[in-house]
Amino acid sequence: MVPHLTTALKGPLLDLERRFLTEQPSIERWFRTQWLEHTVPFYASVDLRNSGFKLAPVDTNLFPGGFNNLNPDFLPLCIHAAQSAIEKICPEARGVLLIPENHTRNQFYLQNVLMLKRVLQQSGLNVRVGSLLPEITQATDIALADGSTLTLEPILRKGNRLSIGDFDPCVVLLNNDLSAGVPELLRGLEQNVLPPLQGGWTTRRKSKHFAAYDHVAQDFAALLDIDPWLVNPYFDVCGEVDFHARTGEDCLAAKVDVVLQKMRAKYAEYGVKDAPFVIVKADAGTYGMGIMTVKDASEVRDLNRKQRNKMAVVKEGMQVSDVLIQEGVYTFEQINEAVAEPVVYMVDHFVVGGFYRVHTGRGTDENLNAPGMHFVPLAFESSCTLPNPHSAPDDTPNRFYAYGVVARLALLAASIELEELTA
Amino acid sequence: MVPHLTTALKGPLLDLERRFLTEQPSIERWFRTQWLEHTVPFYASVDLRNSGFKLAPVDTNLFPGGFNNLNPDFLPLCIHAAQSAIEKICPEARGVLLIPENHTRNQFYLQNVLMLKRVLQQSGLNVRVGSLLPEITQATDIALADGSTLTLEPILRKGNRLSIGDFDPCVVLLNNDLSAGVPELLRGLEQNVLPPLQGGWTTRRKSKHFAAYDHVAQDFAALLDIDPWLVNPYFDVCGEVDFHARTGEDCLAAKVDVVLQKMRAKYAEYGVKDAPFVIVKADAGTYGMGIMTVKDASEVRDLNRKQRNKMAVVKEGMQVSDVLIQEGVYTFEQINEAVAEPVVYMVDHFVVGGFYRVHTGRGTDENLNAPGMHFVPLAFESSCTLPNPHSAPDDTPNRFYAYGVVARLALLAASIELEELTA
Repeated sequence: MVPHLTTALKGPLLDLERRFLTEQPSIERWFRTQWLEHTVPFYASVDLRNSGFKLAPVDTNLFPGGFNNLNPDFLPLCIHAAQSAIEKICPEARGVLLIPENHTRNQFYLQNVLMLKRVLQQSGLNVRVGSLLPEITQATDIALADGSTLTLEPILRKGNRLSIGDFDPCVVLLNNDLSAGVPELLRGLEQNVLPPLQGGWTTRRKSKHFAAYDHVAQDFAALLDIDPWLVNPYFDVCGEVDFHARTGEDCLAAKVDVVLQKMRAKYAEYGVKDAPFVIVKADAGTYGMGIMTVKDASEVRDLNRKQRNKMAVVKEGMQVSDVLIQEGVYTFEQINEAVAEPVVYMVDHFVVGGFYRVHTGRGTDENLNAPGMHFVPLAFESSCTLPNPHSAPDDTPNRFYAYGVVARLALLAASIELEELTA
Repeated sequence: MVPHLTTALKGPLLDLERRFLTEQPSIERWFRTQWLEHTVPFYASVDLRNSGFKLAPVDTNLFPGGFNNLNPDFLPLCIHAAQSAIEKICPEARGVLLIPENHTRNQFYLQNVLMLKRVLQQSGLNVRVGSLLPEITQATDIALADGSTLTLEPILRKGNRLSIGDFDPCVVLLNNDLSAGVPELLRGLEQNVLPPLQGGWTTRRKSKHFAAYDHVAQDFAALLDIDPWLVNPYFDVCGEVDFHARTGEDCLAAKVDVVLQKMRAKYAEYGVKDAPFVIVKADAGTYGMGIMTVKDASEVRDLNRKQRNKMAVVKEGMQVSDVLIQEGVYTFEQINEAVAEPVVYMVDHFVVGGFYRVHTGRGTDENLNAPGMHFVPLAFESSCTLPNPHSAPDDTPNRFYAYGVVARLALLAASIELEELTA
């Protein structure tokens, strides 16, 4: 079962997907040489949007939380990829301390943690899950809906090493995006911390990611001789916005207008009849809190109190001051009349699967990763590594291959972004 | 559908498989450090025998010819692994020249070549298949039983580079074991040749492989604190045997006796009631030609003319002069009353699948890879990377994990063997 495009696959994207197929050897070779030059994050997930005329990443998560949503048939791919990552980063490792988010009541998230633990175990590592929650003072079993159990344990710090009891891990793997800041516990460790602490939302900025992505998309477009806009959303950024005090609104409105104008020119060039929209969201932070869809600059001037409150705060009460204005990409994939948005999962530089967020209550121009949102995950039914040049460019394996290519472009941007953050 | 062990899984192997599970992190860490020290061949397949009290490799093929027999569900694993290999060996590569065996009428083999071509293509390489056959003077399409077509093309040599027309490959991948010798065409190339020419049967010797395996098995057994014999067949070798002239028979009989005596001691130690047997086979060569099962030294003295003719020659008319005497390992796996022998496939250092050779007409002490043999391939139904310590040691995923471990020991031995051959 795969969502279908509700728009006829039109000129630009069909051409793009065709070029992905015919240029596959060049693309893969290009990626190989890029991975020689850049250090890939341990893992990542990328939200894509497919409008039929454009296929672009809109968010890159360095602490992916949906491993439970992947097709279980591809678990061996995750294991291979995790083994490759461990080989490169820490071949001598025996034990990994996995530090998840503090969501002890989110069954879906906890299943993700358990799946991640299994992947690491089956890669041949001893794995213990250490919690940052102060109330976890002893090993605590949490029953999961599927009958399994996840054990959370308190983390000890001795000098600059973390441990759990007498378990002394070589590596600390974060599945916690540090939205609440970097805890003292994690600072200055002698153990390898993956991804690096700088990848957390205390220091990470979406605008830096998409600035790196701009360069990646330019290089890739030059390789394929295509318009980079086909895989790259316009964006701009406003600093020092205060939604409560209503400062920074002029900057925001002006930049919204600039992005919309650039989009109008592109829509005209490609004959796209839809209304352009931008997504305004916090430059740091996650979970789709503080996100709005805007079709006209005036909308960001006329926010009511409720809207301003919503925009002002993201996860863990982080105040929003830097705001990203990102070209909106319609998602024209639908299944049973619900909109669907692909999320691609990568471990090391390998695409290991993905799923669709399927949401019945949302429009094609809305963010599908919103708080309290109950999307239905639909695992990719086939791998992203099986392009077939003999079938149509938008045939399922070919569409998935295209998703894997664009997701890897975002992964490459994340690599460059992390290099800059840790330099 | 998985063959079952006809013998109750007894003490030694059950213990062994249990240790594989409990020691998985140590095992995987050990392999990781080994792969840092040794260069793994591009690909390999390993024939294993599982007697219920022993699990050991009996043959390691550096030019595996059964990719068509693997479970198609695991194709993405092959692709990942091939990408890893290419990344390490030749990241800049765009094109590969694949050189198969000269079997243009063996449909099974040709399907293997096509599958291998697809794996390489889906890894992102341009692939052309070049034939060593003199009658291939232009591109020749061969129709395969499944409706697909394999195109064989003539290979050109200009200076020290091979090409096909204007296709100038970076890498030459051999799927030809060079039993007929190393053709002049392949000597002294500036292109990377995989595996190296020294891996062909002109220079390779099984006894060197199993000598390297001895060391690997010793180290591995020390790691796990087990008797290395549980994963290692005894062997010895006789040079200058001439089956026609009946010279070297004394050496052969004496060594057969030595191996049988060592086996009797081990069988007594472990309470094994079966009769020990040895396999006598050519030290160089493949396809199971020139192979006999021997339970008493006298049998190699009383060969009739037909048996001597059979033993004297292997594939491509190679004369046998060096003979390997290898401890026979019973295969006590059966399916529908046919004996079954697992074959594990690896690309780079990753286990990518495998299949059983299922043979109705053979005994548990006979070689299943014989000329004219019509085994039925039965693809492994699950991956070899999903051990589950919570289920029984001989549960299917755990048995497959054990196969993957022992196959990788043989792969490591092949790595060391190739290092010595190319030193």
